[in-house]
Amino acid sequence: MDDLHARLRAGLPAEALQTDPDVMASYAHDMASFCPAGTPAALVFPRTVEQVQHVMRVATELRVPVVPQGARTGLSGGANATDGCIVLSLVKMDRILEIDPVDRIAVVEPGVVNAVLSRAVDELGLYYPPDPSSWETCTIGGNIGTASGGLCCVKYGVTAEYVLGLDVVLADGRLLSTGRRTAKGVAGYDLTRLFVGSEGSLGIVVKAVLALRPRPPRQLVLAAEFGSAAAACAAVCSIMEAGHTPSLLELMDRTTIRAVNKLANMGLPDTTEALLLCAFDTPDPAADLAAVGELCTAAGAAQVVPAEDAAESELLLKARRLSLTALETVKPATMIDDVCVPRTRLAAMLDGTAAIAEKYGLTIGVCAHAGDGNTHPVVCFDHTDADEARRARESFDAIMALGLELGGTITGEHGVGTLKKEWLARELGPVGVEMQRGIKRTFDPLGILNPGKVF
Amino acid sequence: MDDLHARLRAGLPAEALQTDPDVMASYAHDMASFCPAGTPAALVFPRTVEQVQHVMRVATELRVPVVPQGARTGLSGGANATDGCIVLSLVKMDRILEIDPVDRIAVVEPGVVNAVLSRAVDELGLYYPPDPSSWETCTIGGNIGTASGGLCCVKYGVTAEYVLGLDVVLADGRLLSTGRRTAKGVAGYDLTRLFVGSEGSLGIVVKAVLALRPRPPRQLVLAAEFGSAAAACAAVCSIMEAGHTPSLLELMDRTTIRAVNKLANMGLPDTTEALLLCAFDTPDPAADLAAVGELCTAAGAAQVVPAEDAAESELLLKARRLSLTALETVKPATMIDDVCVPRTRLAAMLDGTAAIAEKYGLTIGVCAHAGDGNTHPVVCFDHTDADEARRARESFDAIMALGLELGGTITGEHGVGTLKKEWLARELGPVGVEMQRGIKRTFDPLGILNPGKVF
Ligand SMILES: Cc1cc2nc3c(=O)[nH]c(=O)nc-3n(C[C@H](O)[C@H](O)[C@H](O)COP(=O)(O)OP(=O)(O)OC[C@H]3O[C@@H](n4cnc5c(N)ncnc54)[C@H](O)[C@@H]3O)c2cc1C
Ligand SMILES: Cc1cc2nc3c(=O)[nH]c(=O)nc-3n(C[C@H](O)[C@H](O)[C@H](O)COP(=O)(O)OP(=O)(O)OC[C@H]3O[C@@H](n4cnc5c(N)ncnc54)[C@H](O)[C@@H]3O)c2cc1C
Repeated sequence: MDDLHARLRAGLPAEALQTDPDVMASYAHDMASFCPAGTPAALVFPRTVEQVQHVMRVATELRVPVVPQGARTGLSGGANATDGCIVLSLVKMDRILEIDPVDRIAVVEPGVVNAVLSRAVDELGLYYPPDPSSWETCTIGGNIGTASGGLCCVKYGVTAEYVLGLDVVLADGRLLSTGRRTAKGVAGYDLTRLFVGSEGSLGIVVKAVLALRPRPPRQLVLAAEFGSAAAACAAVCSIMEAGHTPSLLELMDRTTIRAVNKLANMGLPDTTEALLLCAFDTPDPAADLAAVGELCTAAGAAQVVPAEDAAESELLLKARRLSLTALETVKPATMIDDVCVPRTRLAAMLDGTAAIAEKYGLTIGVCAHAGDGNTHPVVCFDHTDADEARRARESFDAIMALGLELGGTITGEHGVGTLKKEWLARELGPVGVEMQRGIKRTFDPLGILNPGKVF
Repeated sequence: MDDLHARLRAGLPAEALQTDPDVMASYAHDMASFCPAGTPAALVFPRTVEQVQHVMRVATELRVPVVPQGARTGLSGGANATDGCIVLSLVKMDRILEIDPVDRIAVVEPGVVNAVLSRAVDELGLYYPPDPSSWETCTIGGNIGTASGGLCCVKYGVTAEYVLGLDVVLADGRLLSTGRRTAKGVAGYDLTRLFVGSEGSLGIVVKAVLALRPRPPRQLVLAAEFGSAAAACAAVCSIMEAGHTPSLLELMDRTTIRAVNKLANMGLPDTTEALLLCAFDTPDPAADLAAVGELCTAAGAAQVVPAEDAAESELLLKARRLSLTALETVKPATMIDDVCVPRTRLAAMLDGTAAIAEKYGLTIGVCAHAGDGNTHPVVCFDHTDADEARRARESFDAIMALGLELGGTITGEHGVGTLKKEWLARELGPVGVEMQRGIKRTFDPLGILNPGKVF
């Protein structure tokens, strides 16, 4: 360890290296429950590409594992330390290097916080769509690491669609540039996309060229209350089938609604079994919402409440934004799942999840990016009760099994990390796993990059 | 060779195997000029996944190279035969397996012609955007192989953005499924994207899950005539900077305009140095065109002609559609380049290309997907004149050098094939090439998949 510290110090300014055990421990894990975290040997905050290269060269020479980290808001243990590793926190590489309104690109360092970039481009009339709910704290590097989604994905897609090019420090310290700053380009294999969602296991992202869009008009929101989850899901299907392109289409189930009601006195009727939120940022959002309102009524909505303006829209969205916090008050601990199914199977997913909750005697609230078929069942439990904790973990697995059965994926946007490693093989099958491992070996032959994650 | 034929025959219906030298010769190359093509040893038209797997197993056992082919409309030699290879034509695997308007996906075999799919989804009120100009003949498998673009990319993006999942037969005959049929998913590395644009060098695509969109309103087109290419490019920049999202933004230079005028008597004034075509498929396209018209006038347009309806729009687009055919009448042969630069550098690219034409004493017409910065300089020459042919090749290379200098890429949408192999290394650099080769080795350790292409 002394050798490691000395070697690291040789190429780093003093303040970039932390070896205090308490400080290191506080960087040992992300926000996922039930994911093991080890004890780091060093914690580094590089400010330059050269410093990252130095760290990787030392790590390669000494065969020390490296765990890249953004803001550690991850929900799968992907940023958790392993014993004896170097935690490489990119949060101090946080400069926005360039914003170009004609080329519609931003060039950023990985530690830039999502909200900081979003506000900076907004000032220029531009829009960086990916908006995970953690956007006020999570970093672009972490968003790239997990291929993050958010509320706007139903219209604007996920992080992957906005990454044009990357600078990546490889396991041995060499610098690789991928992609481009042009709108199009097909020169060679798409390595850029390979890094997006690779959870720090293939290289360290040190710079990103991101695509921007013109800023759309402000969205207008509608809320619709349903007597059953199935009816709300039927509305989702008919909205999509009718050819609408909402900028947001979210669903909250009964458990979530009640938790939110209790936390914030939102006054939603107790008979509401599902709440659907739909928004448009089109030239005439009121007209689009009116059409969607009719589809909701036809699908059996008890009440349809369109917002009149931005302030009312924010109020309607507040319930959704409080969901997670509200569900966290139900029990001392929560586990957040992230199963995505074809939207035609959304009703089956919700009903199945309710059945799982009953079977295991647990409270499971679901909020969903319904337009994408991406559900977040939140398993509420008491981690000090061993039996309840065991049932929580089992129900979590049962939810993933259900998702796969319905033709879905075990993770729509949170990634595999350590949380879903065993499940990845079930989803990919043996040939898939073998090819994925082959790619890992190509980029990281010594296996020092975020070991124990993904596979 | 007899052994090869016998082994192939053992797992194929009689009509799937062609060994007639003349027939095989007619499948030896795609539509690129100046790309070497070898003599195939066998030509196979599989109809099932199992037949493709059989071919790959035989090829692996006997170490015979395999060249996958779609409609052979490629412009980089990517589908050209190598000596002694099996040409594997996927054109008979041409079934549309499924179209789902709620999940907004289509599931297709690789031989489906782009226009056939586009029409089939259109009938259901859906839209498959990628629209290479060859859409009436090229296949989805070829589109995936090259990550094809088209006119609509400026708004809707390229093929890569519409491929959700793939079934791929690997070099050794095993079947790999990648991706998903859900809107989102981040389980493991993005192998789907790795195959898109891989030009048949990593595996044989035998099925694809494609994303669809709701069909937009019909687009309305505007034409604007400029006294210089630089003025037209300035208009492109101000259109994008103003936050417009046209569904098409195309540019034709003086040489192209004159060739089209000559071929079809379009009656464009001889003083026109550049023609810009812009379209919108928004709810109020006339209003958007009016705004764009003003920006064109401000940038110096001599005339601005907005279409009143769909018929007039088609007429305006006719000039663009005739460009290639018209330029082909200038000289006996053409070479089509495909350089994409940041749109802020479009004017420099066009002026530089004109200077190259002058330096080499050649006619080079440029049409461009201007909104994407993607130019197609068409070098017109007499291939029977050795000196002119040499100059043509040199000017072609000078154009790529210029593109790289301006921060662009050697290929925006046509791919590398054999045509641009040497240039790929210049664009990617040594680390990039090494990582790309590593990926090739992972998927094709024996090097039998489309050898000699890309690298
Ligand atoms: C309240 C809350 C709400 C959330 N809502 C959403 C949501 O709506 N949608 C969504 O998708 N996620 C959501 N998340 C999950 C999480 O915020 C995202 O995954 C986010 O992208 C993580 O960013 P981060 O900076 O915190 O990265 P970290 O958690 O620090 O790291 C995430 C992964 O990326 C890797 N990584 C980080 N930086 C780099 C780098 N520079 N180079 C290489 N690898 C790197 C890490 O090793 C790790 O594997 C939420 C989390 C919370 C706590
Ligand atoms: C008049 C004309 C206009 C054109 N306009 C455009 C345009 O606007 N935009 C554009 O991008 N291109 C354009 N092209 C180029 C070409 O049409 C596209 O690259 C198209 O995608 C090729 O499709 P194809 O079916 O002809 O494939 P092919 O030419 O047969 O093959 C292309 C590549 O894909 C591979 N391949 C084919 N099928 C498979 C499969 N099933 N599995 C694995 N690999 C496979 C081949 O090995 C080859 O490397 C144009 C060409 C012409 C002649």
